Amino acid sequence: MVRLRDLGSIALFTVAITAQTSTYVNPAVPTGTPIAGSYAGALRPQIHFSPPQNFMNDPNGMFVDANGTWHLYYQYNPTGIVAGNQHWGHATSTDLYHWVNQPIALFPPEERVYVFSGSAVVDVNNTSGFFPSQDNGVVAMFTLARYYENGTAGPQTQNIAYSRDGGYTFEYYDTNPVIDSISSQFRDPKVSWYEDHWVVVVSYAQEFVVGFWTSPDLKNWTFASNFTAHGLLGAQYECPNLVKMPVRDASGAVIDEKYVLAISIQPGAPLGGSVTEYFLGDFNGTHFTPSDAITRLTDFAKDNYAAQFFYGVPDGQNQVNMGWASNWQYAQRVPTGNLEGWRSSMTVPRVKYLTEAPRIGMVMVDEIYDLTPILDSRLKNSTFGNGTVALDYSSVDSGALYIEVNVTNINTFDLKDYSTLNISFASPASGEILQSGFYFGGDNPFFVNRGGIKGFDNIFFTDKFSTADVYSTGSDNGIASWSMKAVIDRSIFEVFVDRGIHAGTVVFYPTQPLTTLNLAAQLPAGARVSVDIWSLKSAWAEYEDEQGTVFGNVTTISANSTARRSMVYKSDFSI
Amino acid sequence: MVRLRDLGSIALFTVAITAQTSTYVNPAVPTGTPIAGSYAGALRPQIHFSPPQNFMNDPNGMFVDANGTWHLYYQYNPTGIVAGNQHWGHATSTDLYHWVNQPIALFPPEERVYVFSGSAVVDVNNTSGFFPSQDNGVVAMFTLARYYENGTAGPQTQNIAYSRDGGYTFEYYDTNPVIDSISSQFRDPKVSWYEDHWVVVVSYAQEFVVGFWTSPDLKNWTFASNFTAHGLLGAQYECPNLVKMPVRDASGAVIDEKYVLAISIQPGAPLGGSVTEYFLGDFNGTHFTPSDAITRLTDFAKDNYAAQFFYGVPDGQNQVNMGWASNWQYAQRVPTGNLEGWRSSMTVPRVKYLTEAPRIGMVMVDEIYDLTPILDSRLKNSTFGNGTVALDYSSVDSGALYIEVNVTNINTFDLKDYSTLNISFASPASGEILQSGFYFGGDNPFFVNRGGIKGFDNIFFTDKFSTADVYSTGSDNGIASWSMKAVIDRSIFEVFVDRGIHAGTVVFYPTQPLTTLNLAAQLPAGARVSVDIWSLKSAWAEYEDEQGTVFGNVTTISANSTARRSMVYKSDFSI
Repeated sequence: MVRLRDLGSIALFTVAITAQTSTYVNPAVPTGTPIAGSYAGALRPQIHFSPPQNFMNDPNGMFVDANGTWHLYYQYNPTGIVAGNQHWGHATSTDLYHWVNQPIALFPPEERVYVFSGSAVVDVNNTSGFFPSQDNGVVAMFTLARYYENGTAGPQTQNIAYSRDGGYTFEYYDTNPVIDSISSQFRDPKVSWYEDHWVVVVSYAQEFVVGFWTSPDLKNWTFASNFTAHGLLGAQYECPNLVKMPVRDASGAVIDEKYVLAISIQPGAPLGGSVTEYFLGDFNGTHFTPSDAITRLTDFAKDNYAAQFFYGVPDGQNQVNMGWASNWQYAQRVPTGNLEGWRSSMTVPRVKYLTEAPRIGMVMVDEIYDLTPILDSRLKNSTFGNGTVALDYSSVDSGALYIEVNVTNINTFDLKDYSTLNISFASPASGEILQSGFYFGGDNPFFVNRGGIKGFDNIFFTDKFSTADVYSTGSDNGIASWSMKAVIDRSIFEVFVDRGIHAGTVVFYPTQPLTTLNLAAQLPAGARVSVDIWSLKSAWAEYEDEQGTVFGNVTTISANSTARRSMVYKSDFSI
Repeated sequence: MVRLRDLGSIALFTVAITAQTSTYVNPAVPTGTPIAGSYAGALRPQIHFSPPQNFMNDPNGMFVDANGTWHLYYQYNPTGIVAGNQHWGHATSTDLYHWVNQPIALFPPEERVYVFSGSAVVDVNNTSGFFPSQDNGVVAMFTLARYYENGTAGPQTQNIAYSRDGGYTFEYYDTNPVIDSISSQFRDPKVSWYEDHWVVVVSYAQEFVVGFWTSPDLKNWTFASNFTAHGLLGAQYECPNLVKMPVRDASGAVIDEKYVLAISIQPGAPLGGSVTEYFLGDFNGTHFTPSDAITRLTDFAKDNYAAQFFYGVPDGQNQVNMGWASNWQYAQRVPTGNLEGWRSSMTVPRVKYLTEAPRIGMVMVDEIYDLTPILDSRLKNSTFGNGTVALDYSSVDSGALYIEVNVTNINTFDLKDYSTLNISFASPASGEILQSGFYFGGDNPFFVNRGGIKGFDNIFFTDKFSTADVYSTGSDNGIASWSMKAVIDRSIFEVFVDRGIHAGTVVFYPTQPLTTLNLAAQLPAGARVSVDIWSLKSAWAEYEDEQGTVFGNVTTISANSTARRSMVYKSDFSI
């Protein structure tokens, strides 16, 4: 039962359609200045974005501007270490790893109304009329969620705010909401441009509906279609994303393009809590038509939720997204809150396109966005058949590594159940261990096990994850190759299996830093294993003052900065 | 790419269409006599079916005959403790708990050809012509899988065998295969009757296709339709089941009927390895049409695979099935093999029908089949608000319990995050603990955690499982009720949450028997918790001789035993 716009004006909820142009600033929340924080904690990721302090969840409002600056906003409680009091935090980057913390971008319009998730676009052609003399105006569209004094949920409505300074400060539109509702479960608008109009996908969360609305100007929205009850339902649909991306063949050449509709489900994921599924299909400007009946998941573990695609990546290029690297089952309880005053990081930025995977057909692959800006020293570069690699990386200040493993010339006729490649990270001080590995024989599972890490105990903090990876073999000769790429960063491990066909995001909380790596290959004769291990430079350390505090910055830009640099969106990072 | 029958005759594979009427008996496999085994081991389930010794996987050939005898066949390696050398083991029961081990029912036709999964029907009207003078003839349809001397897989074809003694002994049909193929991934036929013809669903495993074929006589099959690539793919489709079942309203009244198409996926389940998904729809005798695009899973844990529905449950009644309570990721490594000489049990028999669940819509519910025949003593019957129940059940010989918890009058406005009901089973001797519980506030997760059980360590043996259970609240007053039913049986825990809307099957392997139960409720004022705990009688102990061995039986029946007893298929077991 969809709540249509014309139901929004009944008397009980008129408060929701009062235009809100002012904002409510809790006295504890700083304005006009970034929030400072220490990024030196033993669990604090060094190449991932995390908030300076307090609680972060969904990425919001992501866009890349004409100058190549990436804007990341995020669901943010600036006054607490659990969810609540939702604002939009803000950070900017020119390489997606070095983030400058900016002042909070969106404040609630009034007490007990919170700024929930949403998106942002650059209104280059001033369709909105907000930007008479500039082509870099930004419009954010987001949910305002009202809560009554007794704590019960009021309506969730869709609203806009505009920024004339390129996304650093916003004004509320004076005739919000732009999509009204009486539902308390209607949220997470994600806007994109289709040929000659804006399109927003927005979730009727507990009705398992993604609504499609269109607009010429971001202010006036017309209902277009619903996409209802596809795939896994969980118990809510959240954070839909609609995005067109290239289809690439095995050589990387673009052979087609296709739409992806991603839906985050929470709670009720198969592994518990939060997960994201996606559907492939076509979009005609008003309707999404799935091209098959397959339910695909973005991640085989349980710490990648509500990923959002950056608006503004040029048509035809690979898309880029980042997800919230956590799970509502334990996000508000992880030990970084009490130990270090922050909770949650984003995933690494990921380059996304579609390709045909062996047997299972078309999938969205995840590649790590170009790591060059933070690539430090090559610690290992080994090629061998069967053997091991042992590395003590305790001298790497960041504690962060990039690992690439390529296995070639695998004679699949000679595979045994014990034909494996194992990689583990350990703390000699505490005995803690994070394990990962692949079984080349049998059902081809790739696994990650955080059960040997002891700094967090929670009834929902599942220990083991795995996926079945059907890797390619040569047409007739049974000779196969296989690869993995991974980043480990103090309390987060992200692994991309076999060209990124499978991705796993796993947070873990050791009591002592992991400082040793062991890799062991046990493969049929003739197989070649190539291992590259690089240390990664902290993307935060260079911003620290003598006391280790990162202050962020107040970036100001002129309203008519129009130069669009020749951007190259770097994908397929491979050393 | 479907392998059609007419492709089966090319020269390379002519061996596959040689009629096979004889069987190959490995000298180590006993014929005409049941295999004996001890059911006394500390890990051996007492109210679940498990094989007398060695390795079991999928349930096969399940039917209930006119006399009310339930026949369970199963994938069986009679000579080893891992999969291989597949036969059809056989057991019979009149109550689905007391099983009589019978002689092996189906032997391979020749060396290196194995009898894989399949189904059986009673050919009451002698459509097959095998049964000129009886109405209790049984026809089994199953996959024969050929392996070449070098270990590579040859074709999998669909074959039949008939039994003139009610399912105890079988003859191979003399013009097998009845559905030929050149594919090595084509298996698991499940036959049913539709109005005036037989229908079989069979899996083209690596093409993600369920093929529908029809036949007047079980011998001649015509391709009818394909159901292709729906829901989660994993890396293979296996063991399809097509079954019609009633749709019941909240009062239990039948308001409709609908078809369920269940598909087991392996490997590549979201939790790793094996899982079963199902689709709701209509069936017209040749084509299955899904009634929505939803992907539903039968279980929120990872130990219920390849469940099969019994043939012969009268039209309009609830269906009954049992699953294999394991997962290919670790089935061949669980410690019962080395410790007690057997591996894998089936789930408890489950009564299945469809109903509307709050918010998530129509689902297949699981109820425990009538436990009366094994119900022993009521150990606890408590009603309280907040409080605890502690029980030492070390004196229960079977180690098996039935637990029922009903919670009523929950004021949902007063729920807190810590409003919980926890139940745990422990070994005071070893400190091992199996935990389960429900959070009434927030996202309503129900969880099971086997991480505190120490007798088995495996990289794929995930510790924690959960599901989001949206339970019903009264229409306006916010007053809710909730329930769970569970069976614990030495090394298997099965739990049915909130009327069986969610089911979880969890195997666990303690080093010492679990002998204490603790239940704790922390709920808003006014809530009433009612707890019933019963000991269960071992269904195996009464068959044991003085040395503790269960010998099974050789049941013989006359060919024209026609009396159909007035059967009541007992559902909705509730004490």
